[in-house]
Amino acid sequence: MLGLGLIGGSLARAAEPLLPVFGWTPSPGTQQAAIADGYDVEADLEKALARAVRADALVVLAAPVTKFGGLLQTIGELTPTVRLTDVASVKAVVQEEVADFAPRTRYIGSHPMAGTAASGWPAGSAALFRDAAWVTALTDDSDIDDWALVAGLALAIGSRVVPADPQAHDLAVARISHLPHLMALALAQAGEQGGALALSLAAGSFADGTRVAGTRPELVRAMTETNRGALIDAMDDALGILGVARGSLASTGSLLKIAEAGHAARGRFEHRGDQLAAVTLEGDELIDQLLAVGAAGGHVSGVDRTAGGLKISAWYPDEE
Amino acid sequence: MLGLGLIGGSLARAAEPLLPVFGWTPSPGTQQAAIADGYDVEADLEKALARAVRADALVVLAAPVTKFGGLLQTIGELTPTVRLTDVASVKAVVQEEVADFAPRTRYIGSHPMAGTAASGWPAGSAALFRDAAWVTALTDDSDIDDWALVAGLALAIGSRVVPADPQAHDLAVARISHLPHLMALALAQAGEQGGALALSLAAGSFADGTRVAGTRPELVRAMTETNRGALIDAMDDALGILGVARGSLASTGSLLKIAEAGHAARGRFEHRGDQLAAVTLEGDELIDQLLAVGAAGGHVSGVDRTAGGLKISAWYPDEE
Repeated sequence: MLGLGLIGGSLARAAEPLLPVFGWTPSPGTQQAAIADGYDVEADLEKALARAVRADALVVLAAPVTKFGGLLQTIGELTPTVRLTDVASVKAVVQEEVADFAPRTRYIGSHPMAGTAASGWPAGSAALFRDAAWVTALTDDSDIDDWALVAGLALAIGSRVVPADPQAHDLAVARISHLPHLMALALAQAGEQGGALALSLAAGSFADGTRVAGTRPELVRAMTETNRGALIDAMDDALGILGVARGSLASTGSLLKIAEAGHAARGRFEHRGDQLAAVTLEGDELIDQLLAVGAAGGHVSGVDRTAGGLKISAWYPDEE
Repeated sequence: MLGLGLIGGSLARAAEPLLPVFGWTPSPGTQQAAIADGYDVEADLEKALARAVRADALVVLAAPVTKFGGLLQTIGELTPTVRLTDVASVKAVVQEEVADFAPRTRYIGSHPMAGTAASGWPAGSAALFRDAAWVTALTDDSDIDDWALVAGLALAIGSRVVPADPQAHDLAVARISHLPHLMALALAQAGEQGGALALSLAAGSFADGTRVAGTRPELVRAMTETNRGALIDAMDDALGILGVARGSLASTGSLLKIAEAGHAARGRFEHRGDQLAAVTLEGDELIDQLLAVGAAGGHVSGVDRTAGGLKISAWYPDEE
């Protein structure tokens, strides 16, 4: 586990009952805190990587995404064929960095869709990933056995596994994670412009709508700024919807369109998992099958090795 | 209680242990449901109003705000000097309607800042107003004794009372209630445009940010469309903040400004009540004193009648 912040620290705690876990962090304070909590922490990156090779470990990049370049260079030099995943909230750019700096690693990108406004080792929890989506990035070059290892770990700690193409992942999270952060940040400011009376009256809708504005600004910047193209498109859509509503309110006094369309969209979000049915994936072209499951809104619930290869249990939309 | 939906029905339940409550609703289904729950409901508006005069009751307009004109005309004709409040989420326009249709009523506008995405009599709860802000609208023409009655009721059911000028109230709620609804509605649509993969990955930030999009569209329209001017200004501010961020991301790749300013604003919201100190209001110009408390982010916590007049306990920002 390279990095022991909220996600790395939570993953160390969640995985520890299942298999031996050891970590590295450049922060002496985090080292001491994790060791005091009974975890196995290396102070030296090269020693940690050498140990990973000896143990045939899965290396998890859980550092801030801005540190990935340097870490991947070291991995590419010292442990060029190690099994590797990461937990960054963008996937295409990391896939490219891996191809540039550590192209022979057995890499499967991950994005556990879990987090809180808190951060750092003390905020971690073994339960963080339970019932959360865990994206596994897949391309034509991915090795299905490397995928099965990462997917198996995610399933074992209670996540549902969502296979996705890296670019498709980035487009999706721009809309359901990065845009919500920016909307919350804008709302927090626009609300405060109403002064002390406005803040004292603020309750449910404002508290909910600004909650993720409590996230540390450097974490928000790390995820949003690395997903620039997809996020600009998502912002343009949101600006367009709000701008049309503003124009309608000013000209006709009506907010019918946004009120009905937004309510219907929220309803479909609430019922998004209602129509899934169990399916089994086997045979050839498993990567294409997995990507089809994720793209349709489905997810993987089990991975078994059989004599004939992998047998994958999944949930897939039931098209009546 | 004229109207027995979520707010009227909750207020009936909350007030019933404290004083006799009777209601009216034009809906036969709601009449039956409330009577079945043991409440005293009149089927006829004229009878209900005649009874209110005999009992010297406080009449509460708890119907949809679009019905206020007709109700106020009836009140102005049949019970022109009755004690009156309302629970609508806009105050200036209601103040004007009262002045037009029932100018001699002893009117103090209210806005309990409480609600859920649910609606109707069955969704009501006596606990709805506990620890919530209850705005009491005050103008130079308000009678302080009429105010004391409404404030006393709100305090008795667990609310904190926030005195506010009707226009100042409308500007504030445009930003902390109406704008959050529109942001949530826009986000729900922009998120769904990411397709099935996006919805299946959506978690905390999207769920929080779109929660109030679950509110019934007709309720959202009733409150937002009646606060047109203030809401357009608030939307323009939000569009401006998001537009500047979009431009910065596209040109420089940085979201520094929105990330830091929005985080700081959320922090001030979270700590908004930390610096309040207890004060007592007495003597002349109580309405001005009350408006100053509300405008500064304070609230009223007690109203007592003494030989010398009203003695009001309040919380007011402690300016070190």
